[in-house]
Amino acid sequence: MIRARRLGEGDLVALVSPSGASEPGRVAATVAALEGWGLRVRLGEHAGGRHAFFAGTDDERLADLNGALRDPAVRGVFCLRGGYGLQRIVDRVDFAAVRADPKVVLGFSDITALHAALWHEAGLATVHGPTAGQFDRGPASLTVRAARRAVTGGDPVAVTATRAEPTYAVRVDGVASGTLLGGNLSLLASTVGTPHALDLTGAILLLEEVEEQPYRVDRMLVQLRRAGWLRDLRGVAVGQFTRCADTNPHYPPILDVLREHLTPLGVPVLGGLPIGHGDEQVSVGLGVQACIDTAAGTLVVDPAVR
Amino acid sequence: MIRARRLGEGDLVALVSPSGASEPGRVAATVAALEGWGLRVRLGEHAGGRHAFFAGTDDERLADLNGALRDPAVRGVFCLRGGYGLQRIVDRVDFAAVRADPKVVLGFSDITALHAALWHEAGLATVHGPTAGQFDRGPASLTVRAARRAVTGGDPVAVTATRAEPTYAVRVDGVASGTLLGGNLSLLASTVGTPHALDLTGAILLLEEVEEQPYRVDRMLVQLRRAGWLRDLRGVAVGQFTRCADTNPHYPPILDVLREHLTPLGVPVLGGLPIGHGDEQVSVGLGVQACIDTAAGTLVVDPAVR
Repeated sequence: MIRARRLGEGDLVALVSPSGASEPGRVAATVAALEGWGLRVRLGEHAGGRHAFFAGTDDERLADLNGALRDPAVRGVFCLRGGYGLQRIVDRVDFAAVRADPKVVLGFSDITALHAALWHEAGLATVHGPTAGQFDRGPASLTVRAARRAVTGGDPVAVTATRAEPTYAVRVDGVASGTLLGGNLSLLASTVGTPHALDLTGAILLLEEVEEQPYRVDRMLVQLRRAGWLRDLRGVAVGQFTRCADTNPHYPPILDVLREHLTPLGVPVLGGLPIGHGDEQVSVGLGVQACIDTAAGTLVVDPAVR
Repeated sequence: MIRARRLGEGDLVALVSPSGASEPGRVAATVAALEGWGLRVRLGEHAGGRHAFFAGTDDERLADLNGALRDPAVRGVFCLRGGYGLQRIVDRVDFAAVRADPKVVLGFSDITALHAALWHEAGLATVHGPTAGQFDRGPASLTVRAARRAVTGGDPVAVTATRAEPTYAVRVDGVASGTLLGGNLSLLASTVGTPHALDLTGAILLLEEVEEQPYRVDRMLVQLRRAGWLRDLRGVAVGQFTRCADTNPHYPPILDVLREHLTPLGVPVLGGLPIGHGDEQVSVGLGVQACIDTAAGTLVVDPAVR
């Protein structure tokens, strides 16, 4: 496992859009937030563009991403938005450049495909945290403060499960430790069978989702199970499942789906974590050691930066 | 490859619901249609039930399906509905019973998971054709006549691409032959990385879809590509992509998504086939030899029964 050096005053961060397009206002808010931390910011040439579902063509988005990963002056690569599109280009990411000069990579949602790829191909610890739509919340927000700590600090973070998060009801008591891996469930399911399929042996699996009906969440969890991804886990950290309700009154709620699949795994499961597409999210490292303690209600995660 | 004996006068067909629940009126219409063909019909104990997303619990649906597959009196097993749920039980299907006494299996959509499983585990040719919601169209419909021919006849069927089908615009000219495999794209993507992953080397891939936004179709095709499923195809037979439009004016239409992924494969692609969730569909065998001829505009498929 390799960690990038933590970001400090004057370090240059590249903002890229390897997936969907971003609102200009949100990009500006992100730039302002990062400059407020004392970072210098460079916008990818196509970071503010739009093409079909994406911020640019595959080649444009890839050029911005690889340009940032290859530039020795760039110390952090932050993704402005998830959305959709990373999987189309992820096999062409310059992993050799990442191995030679690891940088702090930040993002979530569709960026889960990049986290998985960087872990698989380079063993790089990355930061699961906000994109531009969440930096928009302002410097005082938990989301922005936690992101700053994750990319500039070298201490573990304790994420506390809260009753205000609906997935708090998903729980199997116990203590577990392992490598934290995962992210957005749809992207994990879409990574099954590909060159970046995750080996979750000994891992704590992080899961979050947005705008997927319960039957789809069920289907994705069934695919992970059938592909063997859930067999040798040490634990599951359940973040937010945002707007995953169903309008059909015959159908079970999302919490029942999660409980049905996660409680029989025989490992500790901690729901209620403020990680994902909810009102606030705490940034956590992926590819680093983490501990679940359901009695304390915490997920403690080692820093992804050194 | 094994074929079941074709159905004839007085043969017993079991109607099962291994996935979603069916409307009682549609079940009755299906029973009437099959009895009109001279078949005897037995409804699975849980065929008309409802439980969460499903027609019954996993054990109930599996009991009906395996009961039918194991009963020597039953010569055909027809699935009343797709919907969602087959993948939850498909690893527990009694494949030994199928190998020992192959029966005519009919269905599509979610039943794609059963087709893939029976092909993978037993080498059984199956019939991709209507469920109860399509038998509802009455005995004169193309759908019902074609289904009858597919399960009772021993001749190849020629399916003609028609301009009335929107996917007619998806085409790469040429002639190809190979084993016809596939079905519903969502189910194929959900089968990637599982024990029933299809080996499509030398195959003609059949694709259809319903109610999936273009970006999701794109994502699923990317997963198939990244998993190597599209590498050694002989051709692609494109059925209906029903209600797969997007409301976002920035996004490309479904036809652009299909063309982008299918035309670079270097094999013949024949769109416009009346197969899927559209107004009518022609039943075709899976696991049997098929030919695409784009000049003739036909997909010719060997019978799945002997």
